[in-house]
Amino acid sequence: MRHFVEELEQLKTKLLEMSSLVEAAIQRSISAVIHKDKSAADEVFRSETRINNIEIEIDEFAVNLLALQQPMAADLRLIIAALKINTDLERMGDLAVNIAQRARSLMEEPVIKPMIDIPHIAGLVQSMVRKALDAFVTRDAELARSVLASDDAVDNMRTACYHELVSFMEKDPQNIKQALDLLAVTRNLERIADHSTNIAEDVLFLVKGVDVRHHAEARAH
Amino acid sequence: MRHFVEELEQLKTKLLEMSSLVEAAIQRSISAVIHKDKSAADEVFRSETRINNIEIEIDEFAVNLLALQQPMAADLRLIIAALKINTDLERMGDLAVNIAQRARSLMEEPVIKPMIDIPHIAGLVQSMVRKALDAFVTRDAELARSVLASDDAVDNMRTACYHELVSFMEKDPQNIKQALDLLAVTRNLERIADHSTNIAEDVLFLVKGVDVRHHAEARAH
Repeated sequence: MRHFVEELEQLKTKLLEMSSLVEAAIQRSISAVIHKDKSAADEVFRSETRINNIEIEIDEFAVNLLALQQPMAADLRLIIAALKINTDLERMGDLAVNIAQRARSLMEEPVIKPMIDIPHIAGLVQSMVRKALDAFVTRDAELARSVLASDDAVDNMRTACYHELVSFMEKDPQNIKQALDLLAVTRNLERIADHSTNIAEDVLFLVKGVDVRHHAEARAH
Repeated sequence: MRHFVEELEQLKTKLLEMSSLVEAAIQRSISAVIHKDKSAADEVFRSETRINNIEIEIDEFAVNLLALQQPMAADLRLIIAALKINTDLERMGDLAVNIAQRARSLMEEPVIKPMIDIPHIAGLVQSMVRKALDAFVTRDAELARSVLASDDAVDNMRTACYHELVSFMEKDPQNIKQALDLLAVTRNLERIADHSTNIAEDVLFLVKGVDVRHHAEARAH
């Protein structure tokens, strides 16, 4: 049993290693967009393989724990939550790659629109990611709920951004390529926010044993 | 043990019910785009709650099976695969809702570009979804591999479509709104294809006990 406790700790450690890599990739992809930082974008591309490998490693480790240890109740919930969070983190890593690709495309064009909104949305999304992962580590249900509450704010900011970028395109067809890249960046940020929400829901399942997905009333408290 | 076999069958039956609902939603969302079929779009919006509820039901059923039956080897793999496929199906349902929303927006505008490519991409994506789910039911590894092989074709078709729609926008700013809706439809179709690929990978894990994610060499055979 001592052995099993250690293995659960090892699972958590691996998941934290994964989340550090993914958080760093998100940070660098945003920096590549905002500061036209080519080396940050390249770093995101380089980290992709490592993130993919660690995802498989965690998945196999968790499935083996289920098979060999036959865990009950809270331990079982922890392993299931780890499996789900792992999948979300890997997808967030993919989205960081998408953002870095758009960053590279944006670097080839002169800046014709100051990117006021992108740093704003990016800041909010990064804080959601941070809070969701902190909530997992500290098993803090309140913190997890605060992530769910931020999701609408991101959606609203992105919608405002969408309309602004559409009128920017309509003003001059020369702006279209740049505006499409910026739209893609905001869309990918919003999807990262969605995955943070999934993680926060998994934390609530882990801590409380309740499933809050799709229950607006439960999420409101 | 008899009881457990029946419960595994029940899990599969629930997952097939879920997949029928999601396939129908995808079919209707495409029909809403291509035939400007408002009632098909409304049907997609109506089915969303049912899909969300069934997702939670399957998830709870699978976690309970893990907790109470402590399954080994092949049974454990089946339950893990069911949990993952369930998540993918729910996201595919969300993507069908996104497509139906774009369909509603497209209905408000005169058609200025014939949608040659969309039915083409949609047909390929729907056949990927079908094959991935058939591969799960029949545990057919060859069929699952054929889904992985189609993924690149969808990506290529979407890239061609992207460039065509961008030049369509550049030609006349009046086209921008419609082109953005069509771009979103192709993007959501591509994401449905990605989820079919995930399901095919889960089928290979289930049948062969191997993890083929991110291994191009394994996918090529």
